Amino acid sequence: MLSARSARVRDARQLHVGKFRRIRGEFLAEGPQAVREAIEAGAVVEVLVADARDRLVAEVAAAARARLPIHRLDDAALAAVATTQSPQGIVAVCRWAPGTLAEVLAEAGPGQVVLAHEMADPGNAGALVRVADAAGVRAVALSDRSVDPTNPKCVRATAGSLFHLPVVAAGETIAALEALRAAGYRTLATDVTTESVDLFAAERDGLLVGRIAWVLGNEAHGLPPEVRAAVDHVVRIPILGRAESLNLATAAAVCCYAAARAAAAPAGA
Amino acid sequence: MLSARSARVRDARQLHVGKFRRIRGEFLAEGPQAVREAIEAGAVVEVLVADARDRLVAEVAAAARARLPIHRLDDAALAAVATTQSPQGIVAVCRWAPGTLAEVLAEAGPGQVVLAHEMADPGNAGALVRVADAAGVRAVALSDRSVDPTNPKCVRATAGSLFHLPVVAAGETIAALEALRAAGYRTLATDVTTESVDLFAAERDGLLVGRIAWVLGNEAHGLPPEVRAAVDHVVRIPILGRAESLNLATAAAVCCYAAARAAAAPAGA
Repeated sequence: MLSARSARVRDARQLHVGKFRRIRGEFLAEGPQAVREAIEAGAVVEVLVADARDRLVAEVAAAARARLPIHRLDDAALAAVATTQSPQGIVAVCRWAPGTLAEVLAEAGPGQVVLAHEMADPGNAGALVRVADAAGVRAVALSDRSVDPTNPKCVRATAGSLFHLPVVAAGETIAALEALRAAGYRTLATDVTTESVDLFAAERDGLLVGRIAWVLGNEAHGLPPEVRAAVDHVVRIPILGRAESLNLATAAAVCCYAAARAAAAPAGA
Repeated sequence: MLSARSARVRDARQLHVGKFRRIRGEFLAEGPQAVREAIEAGAVVEVLVADARDRLVAEVAAAARARLPIHRLDDAALAAVATTQSPQGIVAVCRWAPGTLAEVLAEAGPGQVVLAHEMADPGNAGALVRVADAAGVRAVALSDRSVDPTNPKCVRATAGSLFHLPVVAAGETIAALEALRAAGYRTLATDVTTESVDLFAAERDGLLVGRIAWVLGNEAHGLPPEVRAAVDHVVRIPILGRAESLNLATAAAVCCYAAARAAAAPAGA
């Protein structure tokens, strides 16, 4: 039974801090669902479990025990490792090996990629990864100066999806756009500008089939002019009521599902 | 200049509590955007403004001054009235007069309504109202045992949309479904069950045009069997990757925009 002062618990707790996550290439997944997904993805280094009163925690701990290092924590140690107010009894130290944008682009065939430009909020980034996963998107690429996707708040907001699809570092947005276009992706920025194409019209015109890269702006500042100028089309989600905008994850849901729908039943079919 | 102990500030602060909001039929809108929307909607009783260093706060205060009671607060009074950590300088006491589901149903013509069954989380409810507004939905109806839409967290999450479309009390869900069907609405529950219809197929089959009511379940428990049995169709958003589900607001965004798209270009057109 590890206490809050044990070296192993201190090492795990270090992963609350982005600098140590980067240096060690490790991060934390909390709660039985996330830990189960992490184990299935082969991402887990070790499992830390408190008294497993919860049935789901006990199940996941039993599955881990067969093939991974597992350590018991007392309640204070769990509270020290967890980043939530009401920790769910189990935490995994995971390795972060997200692959590269080049690997994603080397995959053949039609499909969608989401490129987020300087995404700042971990909750938004996590919600975006979850939406992308649901819509069957191939990968989420985060530009330089975006939030760290292994931030605990982001990991939690992905609801397990961080372990389902590549979430890769894209470098500078303009260079990433060039790589996407060279790989045959049509680059579509979502933004509200006068010169933008209506999403419904874009679908009717067949712009949403094939290899599609959605380019999403920063929550507060949107996309800078040089990014808007570098994409194939700027697409506007029609606002049919009087809302000013949609939030990032809901906008991504509308766009990615429009392309998924178009792929399932291409225009003119 | 009102202090935190003035009667007016104490009265406003009372509206942090749901019971007093219900008794008084009043609630608070915070921040210059929300207060501006509330003024435009004719919902404001009085405006409370702290030292207006912020340009937008000063603008909204000036617009209010022409036609509404407005009171200056010191910083402590603002902190007492506001429910956010970093209050944005201006708060409005608003009256809550949401209308009824019957009034919504009396509106003629095609359109969408969202009926939320026992929605528990104010952030989700607010995000839902914002999505519904963006997608041009006619009204959001909340069943009995749903969260109070004038909860400050919900008001904030609507990003002003609470003042754009009716958010009405629907009573018991089953009775609301009967009223919707009597008014010619096709009732579509979104849920993941084996017998459900794929959203893309529902659109191809023309189920998304006309008068459409989306029925959304509780965040944790979904829809009870008697509600699923009482709707015309249970519609499933296809999960194309490995996510377990979408959150409520993103699911609503996908459904409401699918119907908006279908209305803009009906199947077979």
